[in-house]
Amino acid sequence: MPESAPGHMSPEEFRRQGHAAIDWIADYWAALDDLPVRSQVAPGEVAALMPASAPETGEPFDALLADLDRVVVPGLTHWQHPRFFAYFPANSSPAAILGDLLSSGIGAQGMIWATSPAVTEVEQVVLDWLADALGLPAAFRSDGPGGGVIQDTASTATLTALLAALHRASAGDVRRRGAGHEQWTVYGSTQAHSSLVKAAMMAGLGEESVRAVAVDPATQAMDVAALREAVDADVAAGRRPVMVHVACGSTSTGATDDVAAVVGLARAHDDLWVHVDGAWAGVAAVCPELRGHLRGVEDADSFVTNPHKWLLTTFDCSTFWVRDRAALTGALTILPEYLRNAATESGAVVDYRDWHPQLGRRFRSLKLWAVLRTYGLEGLRAHVRSGVALARRVAAHVAADDRFELVTQPSLSLVVLRVRAGDEQTLAAMEAVNASGEAYLSHTTVEGRAAIRVAVGSWRTTEADVDRTWRALQDAVSAQA
Amino acid sequence: MPESAPGHMSPEEFRRQGHAAIDWIADYWAALDDLPVRSQVAPGEVAALMPASAPETGEPFDALLADLDRVVVPGLTHWQHPRFFAYFPANSSPAAILGDLLSSGIGAQGMIWATSPAVTEVEQVVLDWLADALGLPAAFRSDGPGGGVIQDTASTATLTALLAALHRASAGDVRRRGAGHEQWTVYGSTQAHSSLVKAAMMAGLGEESVRAVAVDPATQAMDVAALREAVDADVAAGRRPVMVHVACGSTSTGATDDVAAVVGLARAHDDLWVHVDGAWAGVAAVCPELRGHLRGVEDADSFVTNPHKWLLTTFDCSTFWVRDRAALTGALTILPEYLRNAATESGAVVDYRDWHPQLGRRFRSLKLWAVLRTYGLEGLRAHVRSGVALARRVAAHVAADDRFELVTQPSLSLVVLRVRAGDEQTLAAMEAVNASGEAYLSHTTVEGRAAIRVAVGSWRTTEADVDRTWRALQDAVSAQA
Repeated sequence: MPESAPGHMSPEEFRRQGHAAIDWIADYWAALDDLPVRSQVAPGEVAALMPASAPETGEPFDALLADLDRVVVPGLTHWQHPRFFAYFPANSSPAAILGDLLSSGIGAQGMIWATSPAVTEVEQVVLDWLADALGLPAAFRSDGPGGGVIQDTASTATLTALLAALHRASAGDVRRRGAGHEQWTVYGSTQAHSSLVKAAMMAGLGEESVRAVAVDPATQAMDVAALREAVDADVAAGRRPVMVHVACGSTSTGATDDVAAVVGLARAHDDLWVHVDGAWAGVAAVCPELRGHLRGVEDADSFVTNPHKWLLTTFDCSTFWVRDRAALTGALTILPEYLRNAATESGAVVDYRDWHPQLGRRFRSLKLWAVLRTYGLEGLRAHVRSGVALARRVAAHVAADDRFELVTQPSLSLVVLRVRAGDEQTLAAMEAVNASGEAYLSHTTVEGRAAIRVAVGSWRTTEADVDRTWRALQDAVSAQA
Repeated sequence: MPESAPGHMSPEEFRRQGHAAIDWIADYWAALDDLPVRSQVAPGEVAALMPASAPETGEPFDALLADLDRVVVPGLTHWQHPRFFAYFPANSSPAAILGDLLSSGIGAQGMIWATSPAVTEVEQVVLDWLADALGLPAAFRSDGPGGGVIQDTASTATLTALLAALHRASAGDVRRRGAGHEQWTVYGSTQAHSSLVKAAMMAGLGEESVRAVAVDPATQAMDVAALREAVDADVAAGRRPVMVHVACGSTSTGATDDVAAVVGLARAHDDLWVHVDGAWAGVAAVCPELRGHLRGVEDADSFVTNPHKWLLTTFDCSTFWVRDRAALTGALTILPEYLRNAATESGAVVDYRDWHPQLGRRFRSLKLWAVLRTYGLEGLRAHVRSGVALARRVAAHVAADDRFELVTQPSLSLVVLRVRAGDEQTLAAMEAVNASGEAYLSHTTVEGRAAIRVAVGSWRTTEADVDRTWRALQDAVSAQA
């Protein structure tokens, strides 16, 4: 396509527009503090600002930049806003953004080692680095029988873990003949992430295969005695327990199941795969003093944590490790003729297409590499500790105002609280803050009662942001009186 | 995190490094023509250039840029090289790169409409634009009972289509009780993409559920009479045919199954979902004269094509449409308390987390929007036509040298050829070209014989690149004599 072809951007134009795009981002961040955190648009408002069809003739890229301000920004809930405390953070950072930009520019597709060796090898090395930095066992490193891989999301990691578990437990029969020849059962606490049920649905086991194990009401952690009873009952009934999902930092309250106890129980069952889901909280282990919640992970079969949540690595980057990669690749490998190559046949390389549902894959490790190098482990620890300290500040605010109470003890950078007056007041106070645009919080229910989640973790959040959000919540409750 | 925290990049530093990253990409592209297309490294060589662990203290981002040249570039097979003709193209373009950069900077997570309305609405509008531009039926638009969504890859689209098909055929029983209560069967030609078998494995049906239907030896297209026999035999045996995968542009030779004939057959079977896989070739339909291969898609249940292959939209961007979104969301929806919100309950919005396996999702439509606007439909048509014209040029070269022959008729921008002397000579000639770094080709087998695939489609490829590659192939064959 010659440079004079319609729509083509010349190298000079790319440089100019590229610099403008970088500057747009810097300007957007600078303006963020003054924007309402939650979008104020009603359904259909964004779409109504767009033409009914694609343009026939190309427009200069500047037109898109202008429409970002006019069409898109009002329709955004600003996840990078310093007072975004809903769900969990989805950190985007300068280093990760630029790392991912370079990945787009390189445009390599690393489905197998041979299609771009650096895509595979940088990913292996960077996942080994991160495994070490998190204090994970050597068994999870790429130089042993296991290894790490970047998945898009923890949901995909859960599905992949389940497929590997089924493959191991069935000695390949599920792959060949399907999942219907045994009554497979999977386990997670009532607080397990919804992706566990979704994985069971997608893998052909069905929702009814999932046992929701009771939790301790105070900690919201899985009752391991109840897990044992559930497993024993299924075994007695002729069913085949195949995987336990262990939450290390649940979505609702940051609850942490006892990995070591679950692993101990699983030892009595050859087939039982233990998958540890630290999607949000796992990365805290970069700080040696914040690894307690992962105790026992060294004996688990797989572990996932999302640098795209709290570790500054722009979505998507979910790091997933397995102790035995043969179970994983056994479940997923297929080798059509057009992908046969000498490197694969030598056994000297890893082909990541066999580690996840997708075939194609981009150079995602580049952004994680950029984060690890630019921040250094020191910078990452400072980031995590800052989130934990700010959450303590929130908890102290709660303790100092007797109209509020903590629902559970703060978990790392997550604080769950309620208005003592009741559920209605709790949800109304949250909605008032969200509607004001001052901050953005999300809700949950704990033991049947409404609660507000304050999830700290953006690198842009300061003590002043926390204090301002707290005042907004106080004002909302005062206005209820 | 204050700006003085370790590793943090100030806004000024982000601008400076961002401009440098843009310039690195422009320089990389300018240098590409002189680099060997296929990486020359041996297994382990890239990893050996990296330190054993992450740095304790952060480094300036420049250090990463320097290591791109030293560590990464030699380990890349250059997919954006003008003489990359292997597999299928994976176009990265200036517009898409910048669109995706802006998505990273915005850092919004669009799992549900409410978490950032613009992420959902721009995606809906842009997929409607593209549906219209490809001549897809109105039923696939978001203002009807169907709609489009961006999946990461066509493999995920195939899995998702299968899950929707199972949901519809089982009236929800597969979701509840698993896939094992019926003997489900799925169909594709012997040339269907490997993701069909992988999807059947992942969905709990097993490899044995997949019927590989014979093809016409000359066209490599599915023998629809053989499909009918296979379906009838399964029905007679009490099995439940649930999905037919129709290849519109197979990976091996670009073969196109007869969509209309398959749809006609499927009409006799209420349960049979027709999924049309135009991963590579579907986007050619932006040109009205290049839509013949999709004839019949208007009556299919789902359709996928990958703008990240031949339509200039940096990986990952696989556009997937369904006629009835209820089957899809019925198969995949789960609503935990912390995602409940008024917009979802009003029914006025779409929550894309119910359209794919993942929960989290980035603002991927931004890059597709950037491509559609910057090129305009005119620019996209010129791009596609250029690939088709260059493929014709390759075919003319083949016809003019009687040491070579076409294996199948050229399909859009894909030419499949062989050296008449035999398989060994064919593969040796390809390997000689690949080893020289001059160009990069990949192979396949057709009716048991080795063949070379020349897949044109990069916007950087010129007639001179095609001619130079052809001369390299000729020289390789001459050297065999």
